[in-house]
Amino acid sequence: MARCVSCNDEYDPNDDAGTCKECYEEANETEQEMKEQIEELKAKSSFLALASPIGAPSSTTDVILVASADAASRPVPAHKAVLVSRSPVFRAMLENDMEESRSGTIRITDISYDTLCSFVNYLYTAEAIASSLDSQMACNLLALAEKYQVNHLKTFCEKYLISKLNWEKALALYSFANQHNANQLQDAALEFIINDNMAGLAAHEDYQDLVDSNPRLVVEIYEAYLTKQVNTAVLNL
Amino acid sequence: MARCVSCNDEYDPNDDAGTCKECYEEANETEQEMKEQIEELKAKSSFLALASPIGAPSSTTDVILVASADAASRPVPAHKAVLVSRSPVFRAMLENDMEESRSGTIRITDISYDTLCSFVNYLYTAEAIASSLDSQMACNLLALAEKYQVNHLKTFCEKYLISKLNWEKALALYSFANQHNANQLQDAALEFIINDNMAGLAAHEDYQDLVDSNPRLVVEIYEAYLTKQVNTAVLNL
Repeated sequence: MARCVSCNDEYDPNDDAGTCKECYEEANETEQEMKEQIEELKAKSSFLALASPIGAPSSTTDVILVASADAASRPVPAHKAVLVSRSPVFRAMLENDMEESRSGTIRITDISYDTLCSFVNYLYTAEAIASSLDSQMACNLLALAEKYQVNHLKTFCEKYLISKLNWEKALALYSFANQHNANQLQDAALEFIINDNMAGLAAHEDYQDLVDSNPRLVVEIYEAYLTKQVNTAVLNL
Repeated sequence: MARCVSCNDEYDPNDDAGTCKECYEEANETEQEMKEQIEELKAKSSFLALASPIGAPSSTTDVILVASADAASRPVPAHKAVLVSRSPVFRAMLENDMEESRSGTIRITDISYDTLCSFVNYLYTAEAIASSLDSQMACNLLALAEKYQVNHLKTFCEKYLISKLNWEKALALYSFANQHNANQLQDAALEFIINDNMAGLAAHEDYQDLVDSNPRLVVEIYEAYLTKQVNTAVLNL
């Protein structure tokens, strides 16, 4: 028997051997270095994050965002320099002689004031407002991220939504991801559907809607399922 | 004999055992998670970094920095919102009714135009300009970081200078660190001096200057050396 230097239990060197001492020590060093790198990167992000301008209007803001379809929306002040650095779409708007650059006001339709605040907060801090983050907010933000080409936010929303995938939401998220070119989310939802409950697919409450609105997407589900079945069969030969 | 799952060599389980299989697999998972976290944090930092305003003046800058003692200095445009978020000293200057906030110009004495550019670049990107970074520049930036309370930059400079410590520079850096409250660097330089060549201390070309300018600092070197000697003696008893 040998004794593990990590858990200190005995193990059978023939069946349960992990690493030799040298490799263990190397791995330990690597882990230490990675921990330090993580601390450094966290400090860097926190140095680079800017204070969100929401609720703390400063004399240095030079542009206003408005959720123009939300009657309850207040104007959200921001800095052109920040918007321009985060989004090529804002850059084009604000650096060229367009309506938004002349008026200093950017009107965004189809979103609520809350979504606008969460969006602006993310542009300043690379973090969503935790208290208002749920699947609906992540979908709203993903759509905005796609519209304004804020890739970092799009990835954030996709990861969040993937972590919340369940059978009830799977079809709706699959279709939503397709509409907004969220490939990572679309693939994850598809994978989830064909692995979770293919037999229940046609009875899913969102199934008929999807067949009506986008039958090709439904075809892709069946195709992926068949491919998986064939592959599994080949593996079992 | 057992076989290491990492390097695949045989080892003696009595002398050279590292971990059992289970601990190895856990460590592997942890490493994978840390790698992902590092990638995420790198993406976050790169999202949050702002483009340096140097050489690419934009219509959105609202303040000018000048290295007023450097005849070759050109004005460096910047954004108040960025300066204010990085430095409590700039915040006090720019948010109160002070000369700098009224004129929109911040004059910094005693630095070169190059140092000013590197400083501003760091405030926007959390990185120094690689091509101009050497020990002298790190010292210049450390002094500025101390003056304007930019802790992240101060830590960066201390780490850089610690990595460049050698016998020739050790006394000068020890004294410099003391002047600028760079405790990490001062401790590292002291450690270096008492371990590297205590016998050569009095012959070091910077020694007499330091005795003349700051004898208490020299006393601290001897004190640290004596403490180390006593501790070593105790350990060897």
